[in-house]
Amino acid sequence: MEQVNVTLTETIRVLLEEKKYNTLRDILITMKPYDIAAVFEELQDEKMPILFRILPKELAAETFVEMDDETQQFLIHGFSDSELKEVVDELFVDDAVDLIEEMPANVVKRILRQADKDMRKQINELLKYPEDSAGSIMTTEFIILRPEMTAEMAIKRIRRTGVDKETIYTCYVTNDYGKLIGIATVKDLLLSDDDALVKEMMEENVISVNTLDDQEQVAQMFSNYNFLALPVVDNENRLVGIVTIDDAIDVIQEEATEDIEKMAAVLPSDKPYMKTSVWGIYKKRIPWLLVLMLSATFTSTIISSFEGALASVIILSSFIPMITGSGGNAGSQASVSVIRSLSLGEIEFKSMFKVLWKEFRVSILCGVTLAVANFIKLMLFDLNGKEGAFWIALVVSLTLIGTIMMSKLVGSSLPLLASKIGFDPAVMANPLISTVCDSLSLLIYFAIATSILGI
Amino acid sequence: MEQVNVTLTETIRVLLEEKKYNTLRDILITMKPYDIAAVFEELQDEKMPILFRILPKELAAETFVEMDDETQQFLIHGFSDSELKEVVDELFVDDAVDLIEEMPANVVKRILRQADKDMRKQINELLKYPEDSAGSIMTTEFIILRPEMTAEMAIKRIRRTGVDKETIYTCYVTNDYGKLIGIATVKDLLLSDDDALVKEMMEENVISVNTLDDQEQVAQMFSNYNFLALPVVDNENRLVGIVTIDDAIDVIQEEATEDIEKMAAVLPSDKPYMKTSVWGIYKKRIPWLLVLMLSATFTSTIISSFEGALASVIILSSFIPMITGSGGNAGSQASVSVIRSLSLGEIEFKSMFKVLWKEFRVSILCGVTLAVANFIKLMLFDLNGKEGAFWIALVVSLTLIGTIMMSKLVGSSLPLLASKIGFDPAVMANPLISTVCDSLSLLIYFAIATSILGI
Repeated sequence: MEQVNVTLTETIRVLLEEKKYNTLRDILITMKPYDIAAVFEELQDEKMPILFRILPKELAAETFVEMDDETQQFLIHGFSDSELKEVVDELFVDDAVDLIEEMPANVVKRILRQADKDMRKQINELLKYPEDSAGSIMTTEFIILRPEMTAEMAIKRIRRTGVDKETIYTCYVTNDYGKLIGIATVKDLLLSDDDALVKEMMEENVISVNTLDDQEQVAQMFSNYNFLALPVVDNENRLVGIVTIDDAIDVIQEEATEDIEKMAAVLPSDKPYMKTSVWGIYKKRIPWLLVLMLSATFTSTIISSFEGALASVIILSSFIPMITGSGGNAGSQASVSVIRSLSLGEIEFKSMFKVLWKEFRVSILCGVTLAVANFIKLMLFDLNGKEGAFWIALVVSLTLIGTIMMSKLVGSSLPLLASKIGFDPAVMANPLISTVCDSLSLLIYFAIATSILGI
Repeated sequence: MEQVNVTLTETIRVLLEEKKYNTLRDILITMKPYDIAAVFEELQDEKMPILFRILPKELAAETFVEMDDETQQFLIHGFSDSELKEVVDELFVDDAVDLIEEMPANVVKRILRQADKDMRKQINELLKYPEDSAGSIMTTEFIILRPEMTAEMAIKRIRRTGVDKETIYTCYVTNDYGKLIGIATVKDLLLSDDDALVKEMMEENVISVNTLDDQEQVAQMFSNYNFLALPVVDNENRLVGIVTIDDAIDVIQEEATEDIEKMAAVLPSDKPYMKTSVWGIYKKRIPWLLVLMLSATFTSTIISSFEGALASVIILSSFIPMITGSGGNAGSQASVSVIRSLSLGEIEFKSMFKVLWKEFRVSILCGVTLAVANFIKLMLFDLNGKEGAFWIALVVSLTLIGTIMMSKLVGSSLPLLASKIGFDPAVMANPLISTVCDSLSLLIYFAIATSILGI
């Protein structure tokens, strides 16, 4: 289901070669835009514009929106001006804006030249909003109703003006000053009597967002309140656009991907992995790799400064990866729980004390479990019969308790502190935490080792 | 926005104490179900049933659905049988099923006793589907149209039967045998002439899912195709239910959280962090911590077996955390890219060769960059003026190249192999990869060190 079958693309390639355009049309019109776009992306052929011309106008525009930048750009280069105009005319304003944001300047100029005056104005309005704001993902095409209309009049208006609106199911009621005063759904309208007034049935207690609100927060509201669309207002509470649920889903997916990437020390991007060049991937990964490698200087320095101790009990060095590893795992478990809860709006900085108290108790349980398991393992296997086995096992096990407790507290508090000072919790969390935890783990280890073993 | 203001809950607590029920009602009816539910969860008071009775019937049911299990259970214990019946009657079938799945057996019995016969039958049908299947998240309340109806008749039917349907906007057209033959949206119906036939305007090329399809795949289809609802059919293509977009969003959020948790070596659960007890969190975290600690035996064994080499050039041990750390980071970068792409349906096992070739080139770039940076750093700072500095720096830098290349290849191929053999890529990926990478990194390190330094 997820990927188009290669055989289909191959079939289409052959049919295109043989100029069987009617057959091609019959095939394509049974497919959904997303799947046709996947065929184009796999095809990557100079005949793509021909194939595109076979599509009915509306399907063509819908398919175009689903394609990746490269394919779009390739097609636009093959379009005549009138062909480009046909596609642009069919686009919803928010999709046109997305397209323009991805294209190079010369292509943007061509696109804007083909858009009609009204659309150009709307596009330019939307381009002003900062990236990742509600304004940048909203559309300006929606249905406005007035409070004095009857249900019948409202439905007539929808029938007359609905065809080029992205959603007709949620309609917005504004007063004479353009202020949003209510929401009426098609369900409300259909289930009311014909002469019921919009103002009687509309929901007056409207939740709206500001144009500058963060898109992640906006998407989260869809998931909390089960909306199909959410109105966007300016600072004077005038309705300027709506965000529809399909765009909210894309934001939810993107933000989850970003969080995951950041946690794995990858700079986020909105391009899919397979579409990103080797050089592009390199640039996303090398910064954190370098930072983390250089910050490992701390751990090297700590180990070097205990060279004497290590030399006298050389087996101590063999437990270093296990100790730093356990600390790192314990820390990232805690940080990921906190980061995800922050993203989903389940906790805030003010819950810091509650979180720390929870993690403190969890860390005692985890630390003691690991220490006991480790002690038994060392005594029975690794150190069995070696000189000073008991004391070394004790050092390692006590270190584990200290390390796990420290890691859980660092792992849970750093993301919260980051969110407080306006840093992205996900970015600073995992990579930074591992460096801090590694260093502190080693300090704990050597402190306990030197005091117990007297080295 | 995300959390209810504590002051509001406090106000409500005081008003409840003072029995100002009219004021309470005025406050509550201006709020959304999600926010009212948050107030109840914060309140946790024996007066909750009283507050709940203040809510209008429909709002009460909607609020009930948004509450966490504990609060729901607490309320049910306080309900009389007729109160419970009122709430159950207002629930959509899929919400009733969710509720039943969370409640203990005695509460389930009470709920089922209050449900009317028809609903009980539907609930029992839905309970049969496996967890995480399309059948388990679908609802059986939807609008059915027949192909011979006119648009006018269809709209009449919607107006008559729509009130207790979860969505009226997508209607399903079935033939005499209950087979799904088309989809007509309210938009199609409203924008057509009154006497246009449903079969003329319906979309015949319907995408549907099977009751047993995985919910993650189903949710992904919403994001690909911009649906508001998706029909679910049985093996004979008979329409048995629909999945609505609000449930799909919940699945998307849950699956992202699960992936993130698994990557951080936490057993996934569907309970929010703050709602999980200390013991619950411990049980989610300790298994992987134990496994990873025990598997670190490999690294300890490797280090021990090179004790001699380490003792003669003791400084080598100070670079161990940096090398295993860099390898771990490089590996998790690659695995996360692959895991996320698998989740979003962007790649499949058959792309393995493409992925490996990509990662191979990225790993050379990353490895060489790190090696050069590290060599310069060691020569200028860490080892500056030390005996044999050049050769040690060379060993460490060459190790970095080998480690990064190995880690990227292991990190990208393991999740793909896991998906091939039906394992969850996210589960096996990160924890397993770090163990494999740590061990291999050390082997590379000691192999290079012993051959170059002749120890």
